[in-house]
Amino acid sequence: MFMFSRSICCAKLNQLSTFETLFSNLKLRPYATPLIGPLQTCESRIYREKAEYANVNWDELGFALTKTDYMYVMNFTEEEQKFFNGTLTRFGNIEMCPSSGILNYGQGLFEGLKAYRKEDEGILLFRPQENALRMKMGADRMCMPSPTVDQFIDAVKKTVLANKRWVPPYGRGSLYVRPLLMATGRNLGVKPSSDYTFLVYASPVGNYHKGDLNLMVEDNVHRAIPGGTGGIKAVTNYSPVYKPLTEAKAKGFSDLLFLDALTGSNIEEGSACNIFILKGNVISTPTTHGTILPGITRKSIMEIASDFGYQVEERAIQIKEVFDAEEVFCTGTAMVVKSVASITYQGKRIGYKLGAETLAQKLHATLTGIQTGLIEDKLGWTTLID
Amino acid sequence: MFMFSRSICCAKLNQLSTFETLFSNLKLRPYATPLIGPLQTCESRIYREKAEYANVNWDELGFALTKTDYMYVMNFTEEEQKFFNGTLTRFGNIEMCPSSGILNYGQGLFEGLKAYRKEDEGILLFRPQENALRMKMGADRMCMPSPTVDQFIDAVKKTVLANKRWVPPYGRGSLYVRPLLMATGRNLGVKPSSDYTFLVYASPVGNYHKGDLNLMVEDNVHRAIPGGTGGIKAVTNYSPVYKPLTEAKAKGFSDLLFLDALTGSNIEEGSACNIFILKGNVISTPTTHGTILPGITRKSIMEIASDFGYQVEERAIQIKEVFDAEEVFCTGTAMVVKSVASITYQGKRIGYKLGAETLAQKLHATLTGIQTGLIEDKLGWTTLID
Repeated sequence: MFMFSRSICCAKLNQLSTFETLFSNLKLRPYATPLIGPLQTCESRIYREKAEYANVNWDELGFALTKTDYMYVMNFTEEEQKFFNGTLTRFGNIEMCPSSGILNYGQGLFEGLKAYRKEDEGILLFRPQENALRMKMGADRMCMPSPTVDQFIDAVKKTVLANKRWVPPYGRGSLYVRPLLMATGRNLGVKPSSDYTFLVYASPVGNYHKGDLNLMVEDNVHRAIPGGTGGIKAVTNYSPVYKPLTEAKAKGFSDLLFLDALTGSNIEEGSACNIFILKGNVISTPTTHGTILPGITRKSIMEIASDFGYQVEERAIQIKEVFDAEEVFCTGTAMVVKSVASITYQGKRIGYKLGAETLAQKLHATLTGIQTGLIEDKLGWTTLID
Repeated sequence: MFMFSRSICCAKLNQLSTFETLFSNLKLRPYATPLIGPLQTCESRIYREKAEYANVNWDELGFALTKTDYMYVMNFTEEEQKFFNGTLTRFGNIEMCPSSGILNYGQGLFEGLKAYRKEDEGILLFRPQENALRMKMGADRMCMPSPTVDQFIDAVKKTVLANKRWVPPYGRGSLYVRPLLMATGRNLGVKPSSDYTFLVYASPVGNYHKGDLNLMVEDNVHRAIPGGTGGIKAVTNYSPVYKPLTEAKAKGFSDLLFLDALTGSNIEEGSACNIFILKGNVISTPTTHGTILPGITRKSIMEIASDFGYQVEERAIQIKEVFDAEEVFCTGTAMVVKSVASITYQGKRIGYKLGAETLAQKLHATLTGIQTGLIEDKLGWTTLID
């Protein structure tokens, strides 16, 4: 799993010397900045590149990491008290102190958003300012500083443009962008870190779930708790559900559906998606009172469904209501909108309508139509960056 | 915050070349292994060193990282399906893929134990097999592979011996040892990693809390939940409580006392310690049913107190009982045993007995006596490693 062959390692080392020389007059040096030349060098190289495509079998993309060319790194130091000197560098390993806060105490956040190729080859981002604002909110809860909205969006744009050849052709996937905010200062006691790193990397992706979406209701392990971090994208929300998730997958399920921790009777969300139920003209989704992630796809789907003429409700939804639903679907940046084929609760399985006639399918078509520029974006959700 | 001066960086780079050459015939290379020579080189150097002390002001040590000489790194790869090729290397930054599981989804565990210097300069470890077993239990809950008990103890011993000059003189502190287990394989989707790194580093430490221990009862944020990870040392248990902890510290408190998430009426533990209350001849501490860390100091103190003739109870303890307690104390590897000076709950503050006559003080003297070899270890808790 060593990422570089020997020759590439040596190249990296030579570049480090250059890097060190270039930064030798600066008092403050970026802490976890990878060992590569500074911004100008990368950018000039990027913009000289033609709009060509990487050598990828786009139709076989799932949701796994495909390494791309560049990442963006920006540091916050105790001395400066701000994020500064953001830079694009070659995608690769970063250096980190073993006692850093992210490794020892999980002080970290992430975001996820996608860049889509239009039919005319232009590249669109979908609501990046929403991700920037959510990261700020999450950073406050996790006692971390956050890049400004402008810094966040600038970093995302630069990362996408630098990896332009990895943005799949129109209709054949998207470039998933992963901003990370990590505590990189040295910690020994349990307390917020002094230093932080904001890093953005990207990977072309296809579908998150291949095949139908079959959910199992988890009534032992909960994803979140009132007063906790369920409402933000803290890294700490995810690995604690690996055990029940792995067990459910071994039984053939696609994902879990979590219940609220206090009563165990209301549905909350999946391990990486929000949930909606349809009955008659009413679409309902659980209220996000701190235990449920306020999904950007969730929010967009609520607006589109309302525009379609549906009554959209945010409220507590009892698990028993799920069994009376006409249709159930999940939303998330990774999966967009996807019909739920079945939900299994305490051994009882109920199936739902699938296919072209579902509301989920119509919502999916509209949302991806806006995201890819096929449908006119009347709400200003998309940003053309190339 | 760049960890190395330029000259040291260059030294590292030369050593990388040596390292790469040495490992060039191996198909599998350690993934996150730091850039430094292999075990044999380090060990021979170590054992040639005299039993001298590092240049540290031992009496000013708190609980912050003091960099020591060596760390231990061992990797688990998808191909090998085991931890192998553990090696001591110079303490320093490690390399990590930005998409690794620990950085994106918090898949990580840690342990904490101490090495003490005896009066005759010998070095004792305290119950390291308990830490090894707890890491195995935690790893199972977090869907991670774990080093074997023997691998764990061997790594801890090697780390302590390699950093022998950093073990404080008798009675002036201890060497805190921090084993980390981290997901270092590449992840994009929410699922367990393919590759892991076990790393052990160490730092000389003094007291965790300087001054009295004043607790504030936290009745909004909970540390753990049934079915969650409160009973293991997952990295995900710590940063989610930074916000209320920071707010409490700003008000002058030393730590929080958490309540159970379901009823909000029973005490659980502090952010990094267990709690005991004394009334008459009975010492009580909350039962560890998955929401409370089964502390090794906690367990040891229960045995010592029982040996002293106290009745020791593990049970649910209501917050109101705390106000009738004659004495309250906290336990943990970092703080050992420490009397609680006061507890504040909903604006009401109650003070407790402090000083030489407290049971906490007697327990502290006995436990540290055993840990430093001053009191005969009849239970086989200590391991002499030098």
